Amino acid sequence: MASDRQVLIMEAAVRVIARSGVRGLRVEQLAAEAGVSTALIYYHFKDRSGLIRRTLDFVSDRAVAYTDEAIARADDARGELEQMLLTELQDTPGVRENSTAWGELRASAVFESDDLRDALARSTRSWVTDVAEAIRAVRPDANAEDAAERLTALVEGLSERWLSGSLALERARELLRGGIAVELDAG
Amino acid sequence: MASDRQVLIMEAAVRVIARSGVRGLRVEQLAAEAGVSTALIYYHFKDRSGLIRRTLDFVSDRAVAYTDEAIARADDARGELEQMLLTELQDTPGVRENSTAWGELRASAVFESDDLRDALARSTRSWVTDVAEAIRAVRPDANAEDAAERLTALVEGLSERWLSGSLALERARELLRGGIAVELDAG
Repeated sequence: MASDRQVLIMEAAVRVIARSGVRGLRVEQLAAEAGVSTALIYYHFKDRSGLIRRTLDFVSDRAVAYTDEAIARADDARGELEQMLLTELQDTPGVRENSTAWGELRASAVFESDDLRDALARSTRSWVTDVAEAIRAVRPDANAEDAAERLTALVEGLSERWLSGSLALERARELLRGGIAVELDAG
Repeated sequence: MASDRQVLIMEAAVRVIARSGVRGLRVEQLAAEAGVSTALIYYHFKDRSGLIRRTLDFVSDRAVAYTDEAIARADDARGELEQMLLTELQDTPGVRENSTAWGELRASAVFESDDLRDALARSTRSWVTDVAEAIRAVRPDANAEDAAERLTALVEGLSERWLSGSLALERARELLRGGIAVELDAG
């Protein structure tokens, strides 16, 4: 469980990563953004890579939190599945910041140490498992694992096209809705 | 058309980006990698952002080249479509380097200037158009534009999971084959 001080620092880290990337993240700059000392950051997170790994988990937990909120507003199992995926493609400051940070942390993991890659793999795995469960609730006979792995990878692909300006948000949402329909109608 | 010198410099830029990211790319380091002077790089590419934009087009052209080679080996229209997408998920040094650079350039475009974003959007658009054409050759009645946009975004999502260590290559290829089948059987 993260302390208030740790949450304050990780919230600042997400803002910095969403603004200028993880490669641009310096502990001194983060300390200024969070209004704390660099010593406090090192005290709570040991080193820069510990901070980045914990921030990845924090970003993942925030996504789960706003997704759960959206699911609570769904009328049925199909609506829950759609909400679970479509919430990642929303132009709200919170989602845009969180998705930008998630995409950047994922992209940087290609060049990063194994512990960041392991944290990324764990978060991705638990997202896929949740989506597979939601798919089974709609289509018990579907190959839910494959469909969930594809739909979450599609969300990441569409989200990055949206955030990098290659795809309009509404078009990305339309394509994702179509992808959900195609997977549910398959087999 | 790029001169031999320009190609030599862009090949070195792809190697550097695939090894340490575009954010890690310094013109001095690239000059050393390419065995040329920084002055020659500025002469041919004007500035760092011009170099990066031209390198993105170069990476995109290389992908088209090895994809065309793979398509030539396909037996039928369906095989051509599969080759067009599956060639991006291959553990050959050339494809791994090119895909790593493409993913990194795409991820960095979230934070970059409009001209990189525009070049990325153009390359993505022409890839989607080629894939849509290949889909129509198999299924003239399909919603080829939507299917092509989803399948190419899926390739990018799966490729990044593979390169960041969240997904085994064989599993990524299996999921992509399944995604192609699901899109072709839909509607």
